[in-house]
Amino acid sequence: MPTISTKGKNMPESPIRKLVPYAEAAKKRGVKVYHLNIGQPDIKTPEVALDAIHNYKEKVVQYSHSAGNLSYREKLTNYYETKNIHINPEEIIVTAGASEAILFAIQSIMDPGDEIIIPEPFYANYNGFAINSGVTVRPIKSDIEGSFALPPIAEFEKAVNPKTRAIMVCNPNNPTGYLYSEDELSILSQIALKHDLYLIADEVYREFVYDGNTHHSVMNLKGLEQHSILIDSVSKRYSACGFRIGCLISKNKEVMATAMKFAQARLSPPSFGQVASEAALETPQSYFTEVLDEYLERRNTVVEMINEISGAFCPNPKGAFYVVARLPIDDSDKFCQWLLEDFQFEKQTVMLAPASGFYSTAGSGKDEVRISYVLKVEDLKSSVNVLKEALKVYPGRTN
Amino acid sequence: MPTISTKGKNMPESPIRKLVPYAEAAKKRGVKVYHLNIGQPDIKTPEVALDAIHNYKEKVVQYSHSAGNLSYREKLTNYYETKNIHINPEEIIVTAGASEAILFAIQSIMDPGDEIIIPEPFYANYNGFAINSGVTVRPIKSDIEGSFALPPIAEFEKAVNPKTRAIMVCNPNNPTGYLYSEDELSILSQIALKHDLYLIADEVYREFVYDGNTHHSVMNLKGLEQHSILIDSVSKRYSACGFRIGCLISKNKEVMATAMKFAQARLSPPSFGQVASEAALETPQSYFTEVLDEYLERRNTVVEMINEISGAFCPNPKGAFYVVARLPIDDSDKFCQWLLEDFQFEKQTVMLAPASGFYSTAGSGKDEVRISYVLKVEDLKSSVNVLKEALKVYPGRTN
Repeated sequence: MPTISTKGKNMPESPIRKLVPYAEAAKKRGVKVYHLNIGQPDIKTPEVALDAIHNYKEKVVQYSHSAGNLSYREKLTNYYETKNIHINPEEIIVTAGASEAILFAIQSIMDPGDEIIIPEPFYANYNGFAINSGVTVRPIKSDIEGSFALPPIAEFEKAVNPKTRAIMVCNPNNPTGYLYSEDELSILSQIALKHDLYLIADEVYREFVYDGNTHHSVMNLKGLEQHSILIDSVSKRYSACGFRIGCLISKNKEVMATAMKFAQARLSPPSFGQVASEAALETPQSYFTEVLDEYLERRNTVVEMINEISGAFCPNPKGAFYVVARLPIDDSDKFCQWLLEDFQFEKQTVMLAPASGFYSTAGSGKDEVRISYVLKVEDLKSSVNVLKEALKVYPGRTN
Repeated sequence: MPTISTKGKNMPESPIRKLVPYAEAAKKRGVKVYHLNIGQPDIKTPEVALDAIHNYKEKVVQYSHSAGNLSYREKLTNYYETKNIHINPEEIIVTAGASEAILFAIQSIMDPGDEIIIPEPFYANYNGFAINSGVTVRPIKSDIEGSFALPPIAEFEKAVNPKTRAIMVCNPNNPTGYLYSEDELSILSQIALKHDLYLIADEVYREFVYDGNTHHSVMNLKGLEQHSILIDSVSKRYSACGFRIGCLISKNKEVMATAMKFAQARLSPPSFGQVASEAALETPQSYFTEVLDEYLERRNTVVEMINEISGAFCPNPKGAFYVVARLPIDDSDKFCQWLLEDFQFEKQTVMLAPASGFYSTAGSGKDEVRISYVLKVEDLKSSVNVLKEALKVYPGRTN
């Protein structure tokens, strides 16, 4: 038998998807499973975007420009202007989701053996992209007690070494929902400049900011123009995960020219998704207001209800649509599997993401779960109630 | 300034796209440019596929399964049955074009430092995917005199070493149009088995086979089931390059499980493209018959006219929609640029792809160009006539 690559063997399995067979088995037993495990919103995609697809006019569906249709990139700059991000179309490469943008960024600036610093817990697939590129993730732990704020600057200084090429943050954060403040970004900026590192910011949850807070972009950090790389996507903004349209943005011409070579090798981003994304730019403000109101109510529901559970703790994050909660459990992997395999309350159970998959430090997150509040309030209430009942009888309960 | 990766520096620029600025300048001077440089067909995408997009019914455009929609994979197996390729849906991972399928294949079976043998000239982006993965391409030269047939088995034996993991072919071939015979595939099969190598076949031009010939798939090689990997795409089959839908197929479960981890890391292939590709499976046979008739006439036109040019030679390939022609020129890169920059005939010129970009052996292909016969016969005639006139006055003419 021919061999599999070491890289392939080391690629992590998705922490979310490994529970899927257990969820399927539960459904076969007639148990209703509430899915709080994934970042797939139930919000409708804007009609204006779907209309553009229904009215698609081309007779030959051609390759687009490797950096994406110019008309889309031009209109995107207007969108970013409304967010106080000033860029031109040449500073954008349209990608197949944020996933491809992250890969292009890593590959353009890092070689195998290089290191990237990421505060943990972090989006699990960052690990996959790093392993794929032979890059080592150097995690710095953010704590649930501090609501997952930026770790102290001293922790970054300890992690920097001659192989370090970049710091990466997700802001607002997946999985914690944490929104970085202007001061925290300023600290990251200082570290990046001092050590000549790139600062990569995944800002795909930019629109989801609560309680009157403001999102601060990596593109607005003065003096950091040559070090900043922005990762973006329409997936969450327009509940359009299936479009597979994201982008890579930087004012560093060398980074863009290099990323463009990777973009040319894969020819072009999806054409239909680009047409829909361009049309989505006309989405009325009322859409976002409604969506934000809805998510705010969901967040408040989840945070309040979890904190009412004896032994549980959940910070009140200011962004995205996730929380990481601490539960009185021995092992979140076991617990999440047990919920699907051995538990039901009134013919219902809940699927959560074990937080262990969002840490790269072994043994971390064992008493934490990520909850995506992507279901309507009524279902959220039912599911957190199921969770409460489950914790009453879970054999691995710790206090 | 922070640094660019060595990998990024080594990524090749597209041999086709580097001439684009010269073509744009020519157009600005009012010169009509015939584009024989790209694999973007002018053929209409099947209506049945576009109708599926016009009638798209979902209200939330969600992530699909990471391996692609099951309904699409199920119907795909029926398509492959008609090609005498017997697979099941679990042996398919739907990808963002053949590009992503090639990356998944390389990453699943090869680590940095490993080697892959590819007969050259070969599709230029294979180089990019290899560099991206730290893999070394070991080229084996196929000759224009032999119509670019498979090089002798002795050449393969010479190229195999302990680092060799795979042999890759494109069949029918881009850029040469060469269609591998059953005997040639059998030879490749023997080498793969003897040295325990994977045999990767890029068969995206399967539908484009002329003169009563038959396409033989890597999936039909007896005894090679654990070593075969098929790369496919809807881009050429349905003139649907912008769908960005391809797939990776193998009966090797370990390869598929590994590729699936890479697929999960990027979440899912494009949703609209999958819907259109699934509908495209209902394309009537008449569509393919008409397209094939059209391409046959185009091929005959190009091959005949080029062979009439003094000092030029063009094999008569049996597949795809490319030819590699030898011209009486000093340097195809210079010549192709000169055509756009310094030449016009009756306010017209032609854009060709220098064949040098399709070789990884330095200095090869200097008197060869790739011609894509993706224009209608009338335009093809005009463009080869322009080429003929150009060769009369090109300063670097060699005979």
